[in-house]
Amino acid sequence: MDHLLTESIQKSHLSEGALIAFVPHTTAGITINENADPAVKHDLLISLERKIPFSEGYTHIEGNSAAHIKTTLVGSSVLVPVSGGRLQLGTWQSVFFAEFDGPRRRSLWVTTLSGQPD
Amino acid sequence: MDHLLTESIQKSHLSEGALIAFVPHTTAGITINENADPAVKHDLLISLERKIPFSEGYTHIEGNSAAHIKTTLVGSSVLVPVSGGRLQLGTWQSVFFAEFDGPRRRSLWVTTLSGQPD
Amino acid sequence: MDHLLTESIQKSHLSEGALIAFVPHTTAGITINENADPAVKHDLLISLERKIPFSEGYTHIEGNSAAHIKTTLVGSSVLVPVSGGRLQLGTWQSVFFAEFDGPRRRSLWVTTLSGQPD
Repeated sequence: MDHLLTESIQKSHLSEGALIAFVPHTTAGITINENADPAVKHDLLISLERKIPFSEGYTHIEGNSAAHIKTTLVGSSVLVPVSGGRLQLGTWQSVFFAEFDGPRRRSLWVTTLSGQPD
Repeated sequence: MDHLLTESIQKSHLSEGALIAFVPHTTAGITINENADPAVKHDLLISLERKIPFSEGYTHIEGNSAAHIKTTLVGSSVLVPVSGGRLQLGTWQSVFFAEFDGPRRRSLWVTTLSGQPD
Repeated sequence: MDHLLTESIQKSHLSEGALIAFVPHTTAGITINENADPAVKHDLLISLERKIPFSEGYTHIEGNSAAHIKTTLVGSSVLVPVSGGRLQLGTWQSVFFAEFDGPRRRSLWVTTLSGQPD
């Protein structure tokens, strides 16, 4: 989804600062990780599933507590530096929307903050 | 604690941007999750306790390493978008202070950053 | 690394707001935790290693999936409030670069955002 964030920065005319990508849901998160080999994303999802199994004596009546727990561990927002009007990610980094209870129609809220690089 | 954050925004007169809620402790964190069913919070705390048991051969002499580890996994701050002078949370989202070594008297530091929505 | 972040704030002349310390890698993260007793850092690394073992049937061909997973759990950035031109950390807090696949030469990107305290 990096190109969507890039479009948001272009629209905002932000030159220096940071972008917040915020997920307004409680069973999906957002993270930054490697995009070159799709196996990284696969290993991450499988590992989270092993550590936080779907059924583990939860009390939440909807039955999707595992998705809520993963969301807190992964986080509901990422902050990405912006410099020279461009998203600043490392060579191997991409932003990933992390769906833990889908498929569902989801939203992502973007806010730009002006600042200065080091 | 959403109403406390809302009061901070009102006091700050921030219209567009984001709020940082920062926990200045090392055995308590902060997260965003569902507030409608209190069982979600309960399941989250129980799951963290299962994954990161209080006693597991830690070396930290105070004996509360589990609380420190949970703090790093959950995080010490949340960022919430602000628009139209109001905290922007999803329908089911609330901000939760996550006490892992209490009860204790705790602080929360709020900073507002001006920015613009997408 | 708190003194490096303090230097960045001095260079930026930021008085009120926040600092983002962003790790542009996918096998290293950054976190805030206790610095008084080095055993806390040790217990954190050992616990992460136990929960996310180096070998666990991953598919990523480079073999360092555990480091990628830890990075997502710990996070790629921290946000620290700045007030009175100084980094605002709690009494026991320090910022830690979290190397999960080293030793390697690494970078850290710092951005300062102007804002106001509560």
